[in-house]
Amino acid sequence: MNTKQYIDQSSAWLPDDTGGGIAISSRVRLARNLKDQSFPSWAGDDACLNIWQQLSAVLPECEVLADAQVVSMEDISALDKQVLFERHLISREQAERKSGAGVIIRGDESVAVMVNEEDHIRLQSLRPGLALRKAWETADALDSQMEEILDFAFSAQLGHLTACPSNVGTGMRASVMLHTPGLVLMDEMNAVIKGMAKIGLAVRGLWGEGSESAGNMFQVSNQITLGEREEDIIQTLDQIVLEIIEHEKNARWRVFEQNEQRVHDQVGRAYGVLSNAHILNSKEALDLLSYLRLGVDMGIVKLKDEAVINELLIATQPGHLQKMQGKRLKAHERDVARAALVRSKLQKSPKRANRKKS
Amino acid sequence: MNTKQYIDQSSAWLPDDTGGGIAISSRVRLARNLKDQSFPSWAGDDACLNIWQQLSAVLPECEVLADAQVVSMEDISALDKQVLFERHLISREQAERKSGAGVIIRGDESVAVMVNEEDHIRLQSLRPGLALRKAWETADALDSQMEEILDFAFSAQLGHLTACPSNVGTGMRASVMLHTPGLVLMDEMNAVIKGMAKIGLAVRGLWGEGSESAGNMFQVSNQITLGEREEDIIQTLDQIVLEIIEHEKNARWRVFEQNEQRVHDQVGRAYGVLSNAHILNSKEALDLLSYLRLGVDMGIVKLKDEAVINELLIATQPGHLQKMQGKRLKAHERDVARAALVRSKLQKSPKRANRKKS
Repeated sequence: MNTKQYIDQSSAWLPDDTGGGIAISSRVRLARNLKDQSFPSWAGDDACLNIWQQLSAVLPECEVLADAQVVSMEDISALDKQVLFERHLISREQAERKSGAGVIIRGDESVAVMVNEEDHIRLQSLRPGLALRKAWETADALDSQMEEILDFAFSAQLGHLTACPSNVGTGMRASVMLHTPGLVLMDEMNAVIKGMAKIGLAVRGLWGEGSESAGNMFQVSNQITLGEREEDIIQTLDQIVLEIIEHEKNARWRVFEQNEQRVHDQVGRAYGVLSNAHILNSKEALDLLSYLRLGVDMGIVKLKDEAVINELLIATQPGHLQKMQGKRLKAHERDVARAALVRSKLQKSPKRANRKKS
Repeated sequence: MNTKQYIDQSSAWLPDDTGGGIAISSRVRLARNLKDQSFPSWAGDDACLNIWQQLSAVLPECEVLADAQVVSMEDISALDKQVLFERHLISREQAERKSGAGVIIRGDESVAVMVNEEDHIRLQSLRPGLALRKAWETADALDSQMEEILDFAFSAQLGHLTACPSNVGTGMRASVMLHTPGLVLMDEMNAVIKGMAKIGLAVRGLWGEGSESAGNMFQVSNQITLGEREEDIIQTLDQIVLEIIEHEKNARWRVFEQNEQRVHDQVGRAYGVLSNAHILNSKEALDLLSYLRLGVDMGIVKLKDEAVINELLIATQPGHLQKMQGKRLKAHERDVARAALVRSKLQKSPKRANRKKS
């Protein structure tokens, strides 16, 4: 398997255009395990291999997994794993596995099923923007199709059984990736994160659990999987996210009202540095792209093609950069290649005069 | 007197174009005092006023001071004083004086005579680039013309007598303003400064004595005024400056060889931020203009009109900014006005593609 095919394709976790969107994407994942089989960490290598062989044979038959690509972790290079990770198709933990583990990816990347990660099955459904219900419907449809051909480990009392007790019950984690530079600039993001924790929601960075925030992007997800219906979890999260979006809109205009020039300055410098730097590390690129996105969202700056921001958000990641160059690059070489890519993409989509606001 | 006329004129201490010039400008100043008159600090207000009235009447007759403008420190606003200071036509100390002090400025700003600063007469001759001998010849010609109409305090043993013993003798200070980003980037500028001190030369910042360095610009000048002939001082300084220029050229190419991308990055970011920022303080503007000048000097970047860099070096100073806007501005307002000026000037002189090197 070669991830080259993905490089030219828009990632499923990004919207087609920014569209003023504070919600970048929505994701629902379900943890499932096979009845009477040890969880992957307890099962031996042979058992894992058996499970992978069984599931990779039958799961592509599911209608929801149309045009599926079956990828064994054993068969692909570290670089291809990195690309899949950067596209949010596999976890960092799965990327470290070799034999007896893999992922089955729907052609358009909107659905992916990891096999023998923490659980036998981790399926995820991704949607651009705020679309938790649609993501849930797809995940649920795939879950039903799998139930027809597989026996899941299920307790009438507890619900789905999972390797980690924190997932027992629905086995579901629903999350929304949010872009909240306004709350960050107003120094209010920490308060939001604390508030979320109090109502049982987690706020994490761009790369999920344990990751630092970068590019003012945060992933909000449910923590509780036991004793609540999936629909209720989705509805609560949906409402909370709508509230955060309102807070963010409000924060953006407050920042703008308090110091209009500061916003123009931050957006302008982001564009100026992205268009002209020759060395750009991953974190700086994400942060500058965030302010450029803010400028586009607020109508402060216009680009010939605004989709370039989403494209760069993915393409500037280390794995994608190296895949595009067709070779391994050292950190400094990546910073140079990243800057060259960003300059060339922004040259093709230059800033347009916006007399109304700037 | 209104300094408005100067705003549209190129300053005499700047070259017409950068022309790869590491030496920005050369300056020779002479300290002279009138015989049998107390030095300005010891003379009373009336004596100072008498001297100013006498000198401001006769000095404009000197041929070297063609089209002279006579400016009494009493008659001009604080803002106009600031503009003259930024054009290196008066010292900060002179700007603080009121009655009985002033400056006589040749029409093209290449010669200026301060009256009743530390000495009765401080004449300076400015030339773009490295042109100490020419600057000296002009200063010497004016000195001779003044000697025909004035009696100077002179000792056969010591030479010219001055208020501060450090100027006794020739009363001359010769200096060259150098732009040395290469030595700064190579971390070698401090060694150069120490080396200069050992051979009796002083290295100061952009605004002379006591000023911090900004924009990688340094003023190298002689310290000794006693027991040496003017021509010898000029010749020694000229040789040393040529050596520093060689060091700087060498440092630039070493920086480039060691890390070509770093130079491209620094130059590119400077252009990007200058062209897009909306808040720009004076120090940052000078530093970024320095790297843009370096890029132009090294052929890394081409501007439609490279004289814009010199123009901005002067025009972005606080006094010039306020004079152009026709009103007093607070620090933050200046930062906004400065950024707007720089953006608009660079928009009219955009970066040109330079396929050869970038």
